[in-house]
Parts: sequence; structure tokens; C-alpha cells
Amino acid sequence: MTTHTLVASATREHIIGFDKPFTIIGERINPTGRKKLAAEMQAGNFDTVRADVLAQVAAGAHILDVNAGVTAVNPNETEPPLMRLVLEIVQSMTDTPLCIDSSVSSALKAGLETAKGRPLVNSVTGEEEKLEAILPLVAKYNVPVVAISNDENGISEDPDVRFEVAKKIVQRAADHGIKPWDIVVDPLVMPIGAMGTAGQQVFRLVRRLREELKVNTTCGASNISFGMPNRRALTGYFLAMAASHGMTSAIMNPLHDEDMHAIFGANVLNGTDRNCKFWTNRFREMTSGPSAAAQAAGLQSSNEDIEARRKAREERRRR
Amino acid sequence: MTTHTLVASATREHIIGFDKPFTIIGERINPTGRKKLAAEMQAGNFDTVRADVLAQVAAGAHILDVNAGVTAVNPNETEPPLMRLVLEIVQSMTDTPLCIDSSVSSALKAGLETAKGRPLVNSVTGEEEKLEAILPLVAKYNVPVVAISNDENGISEDPDVRFEVAKKIVQRAADHGIKPWDIVVDPLVMPIGAMGTAGQQVFRLVRRLREELKVNTTCGASNISFGMPNRRALTGYFLAMAASHGMTSAIMNPLHDEDMHAIFGANVLNGTDRNCKFWTNRFREMTSGPSAAAQAAGLQSSNEDIEARRKAREERRRR
Repeated sequence: MTTHTLVASATREHIIGFDKPFTIIGERINPTGRKKLAAEMQAGNFDTVRADVLAQVAAGAHILDVNAGVTAVNPNETEPPLMRLVLEIVQSMTDTPLCIDSSVSSALKAGLETAKGRPLVNSVTGEEEKLEAILPLVAKYNVPVVAISNDENGISEDPDVRFEVAKKIVQRAADHGIKPWDIVVDPLVMPIGAMGTAGQQVFRLVRRLREELKVNTTCGASNISFGMPNRRALTGYFLAMAASHGMTSAIMNPLHDEDMHAIFGANVLNGTDRNCKFWTNRFREMTSGPSAAAQAAGLQSSNEDIEARRKAREERRRR
Repeated sequence: MTTHTLVASATREHIIGFDKPFTIIGERINPTGRKKLAAEMQAGNFDTVRADVLAQVAAGAHILDVNAGVTAVNPNETEPPLMRLVLEIVQSMTDTPLCIDSSVSSALKAGLETAKGRPLVNSVTGEEEKLEAILPLVAKYNVPVVAISNDENGISEDPDVRFEVAKKIVQRAADHGIKPWDIVVDPLVMPIGAMGTAGQQVFRLVRRLREELKVNTTCGASNISFGMPNRRALTGYFLAMAASHGMTSAIMNPLHDEDMHAIFGANVLNGTDRNCKFWTNRFREMTSGPSAAAQAAGLQSSNEDIEARRKAREERRRR
């Protein structure tokens, strides 16, 4: 038994699942923390949005997150029409499935009216007000939703509390007829520089969410490395490690090679890159001949048996 | 309760443990697959050995593996005296703890007579002949030992069988008074290119070995990426992922930056790099200012809360 979350545009389906390659949700179309982009979008200039669509799709994003939160001033008025407009632009350019991202319920509603297919909704939390506003929308449009494990009490530093919040959301969703496989839980990633257990918390939470609630998971991966040097490398290792514990997607920047390579590697090592085909094609130019590879391996004598079998295999292949 | 394996030279101790940074066992001093080194060592030229000692220690190896298997011809005659000689050279140069590596029991015995402190013995297997030859030596010298999970039937492709072999070795060791914390199990890493489940097998085995047998673990990490392009990156991701499931050491090349960085990252994310001090010192020059970092993060709105708390924290720090 595996859990499949179906996300779709008008013409293309994508499945998030334990037995699938890790899902890359491109985070770029989001003016939060991008002042220049916010100003452009407010002025009706969508050149950067268009460039971000093309670049992220080319880099291998499976889903594109779309956020139109350009201002904190009266977002109930400004955000819904802008969300509609941006979604129309994006889906005129690509058949990549979309993720409608807003903290404003009316903008999510406008997004659901505009997006074709089966977009992912980002997000509901465990807050009563959010549950009551968002879950009926999710049920009405029969779409999957990201569930963030915080509530009225904020973000707990205790992972068991965050698990219970996720469990509450799954239960409340069930009351609306929403199935666990349509809920993608974000267990919340803390900066490792501020909390040394942040990584271990996520690894354990992801395992529990998968085993006990049978849900797919996602995260804003770059949070983990906030304030750290060489942070892209660290984010990449985090993604690979989280994926090996069952994390099935991340909202991330597909233009960061370090993150992407870590995910490609994790897919190979988790057995979801069938026959290592994707990795082999991607890095084909970095292949060295088998004897050079054996040389470079510097293999230890305790592994002579494996080595001998491998050499025989290589030998057979070459004939 | 944690498991500590103490490895020591005459004057320096190193602990392999679940709560410790990942242990790097330098694999370079090993003529297996290094024809030039084998020829040098046979000719009594130890320049490369000396260079490998210095380079590996400088790169951060915690333990140095020493193998003197220069020839398959009459190793019972040639290997013990060469093992003595190499160990003497190495321990005259460094106080880094050593790992005596041989498939020849008489060479392990010679090594144990020569090495000061508490060297790691590499290795015993589940083969009856090995158990009877090696375990009494390990008990007599009161040293820790690497236990490789294969037996007379070779290497099983079934991880449950490999677990049972490891369990048998631990039990047989107990008969000799050897404690579980002095056994470091190598669950055997298969090439992922030949067996798509090789990664998942190791992750699950490492968790079982840690939880059920309470033993530390090691591996020849580079086996995983045999025959694959961009193999060093893949080996690095494997190391980070294995470490997140509880792998506590690897016999590896400390001169490969990709492997080492992955381990440094895994230490941060597993909470064993206290206060991220090692990572921060190592990559200090790659720090960017907090506002640039926040910009680069491209943080998603769903994480605004974390973001706001972080910014407040950064703000306090800057004052």
C-alpha cells in the first residue's frame, strides 16, 4: 500500500508518492521577500513571472507554486484578482500542474476558480479559522492540500505536538470527506543553526507521518540552513536525508543545482530512479571507464568478494 | 543509552558512537587495486605510505586503515612482517588510532603484536573458520573488531539474512567475552547500479543493527556508486543518508571532498556537530550576510512565521 497524491493541470498529471521520484515544487513565482518582483507584479509587469515559469520548468520542476501576495495592505481586495491573472498567465505558458499559494482564503478561492485540472492548495493550518475557511473549499473543488503543522499556539518546538496538529488536520479533513492521500503535511523545518535537533525532528516526524497517518509530506527545505555558511550544500544534504526517511516533496528553488543534484541522488538511492536512468542520463558526460572507476574506488580488501563479482559482471557486459 | 566503541593509539582515543560525529576511517594505505603502491611496498619503498598518512590525517581522518596485502602469493609468509613494518612506520608518524586490515589471520596477529593502544581489527566474517581464528585474538588483545555480514554462503542479497549473520557474529563474540559495543558491523553495501534496492537495504539494516543489536556500523561507501557517472557525488549523498539512519563510520577516502562535505553536513543535521561549530569554521569564507542569505532563500509565504522569528533573532545578533 502506498499513498498517491494526484496533482494535475488541464492536460498533465503528476503523482506525489512514496514509490515515486521526489516531487520538486518550484517556489520562484512568489513575491514574498522579492521586493522587485512584488513591485513589477503590482505594476502589471509579468516578465519575471514568465521567465520564472520557463526557467523552473526547464530545470525540472514537477509543480509550480504560484503566490500573488504582493502587499500586506488590504490583501483581501488586491490578491484575488492578481492570483487569477497570474494563474492565467502561467497556465497559458505551461501544462505543468500548479500549486495555489496564499495565506488569504479569498485568494485561494479565486485561484481554485481559475486553475484548471487538480491544483494543490497551499495551505491549511491547524488554526480553527483556517480549517473552517479552507477545508470546505478543498472538499468542494476535490483538490489536494498542503497542511502545515502549526495552530493557534504558533509553531511548537516539540515535534510530538506538531505531529498531533497534523493528525488533527487529517481528522478534520476527513469530516469534510477529504482523504489522507489528498493531504500533504509540512512538518515545519526549523533552522538548524538555532535548534540543533531540527534535522532529527524532521526525519522522525516524516517517518511517523508516513507510517501512522499514511500521508505525503513537503517542506520549505531552505529553512534548515538559514544563517549557515555554504547553505546550499547543507540544504541538499538535508533534502537527501529527509527523502530517505520518506519525505516525498519540497517547495524549493529548482534553479539551485546543489538541491537538485541531492534529490536526483536520493531518488537513485531510494530506488525511485528506475534503473538509475535519470541519473545516468543527467551525468553521462561524467562517466569514466570501468577500470578507471575501479581504480578510483580505492576499494578495501574486505570487499574483495563484491569486487570480484562486479568485475565479472562488467566483463560480461563488455563482451 | 548509547553505544561507544573505543579505538586508541598509544596516546590518543577516538570514540565511534551514535551521539558522536561520523567516524572517518581513511582507506588509502591499502595496496589492493593500487598496483603501483603494491610494487613500491614490496620493494621496501614506503614513500607513498608516508604521503598517505600525512594527507589523510590533514584531511581529517579519525582512524587510519592499514593493509599490507601486496600479493596473493603465499601471503601467510609475506604479509605478517610487512604489516609489522608498515604499522611501525605509520605509528612513528602519527598518533591517529589505527585499523589493522587483513584477510590473513597471521597478519592480523602480527598487527596486534605491533600496534600500540587499542586498534580496530578489520575484519571477522560469519565464516566458521574466521570466527575461530579471529575472535580469540580480538578477545586476547581486548580490541574492537569490524564484523562483515557474509558467511560460507557468500554475501546474501537478502538483507534479513545479512542481519542474521551479523547477529550470529555478535553472539559468537559474546561467547569469547567480547561486548557488542566492541563490534562494528559492516552490513555490506551493494552497487546501486546492479541492485536498485541497495540503498534502502542498507538504511533499513543500519536501523535494525542499531536498535536490535545496539552495535556501531561501518561500510565501504564507494561500493554503492560503482560503475555510475558522477559517482563521488552519489557516494556523498549515500553517506549522508546512511548516517541519518544511524551509520556511525565508513572506510573511505578522506581526500574526496564530496564525501567529506556530505559527512560534515550529516553531522550538522544529525545534531552531532555541536553548535554547528565544525561546519561554520570549515565553510566560514562561504558566509553571506544575513540579508543576502534571506534574499537567496526565496522563502515561501507559508513559512512567514519562522521567517519573522529568524529575522528578529538576526536583528538582535547584529546589535
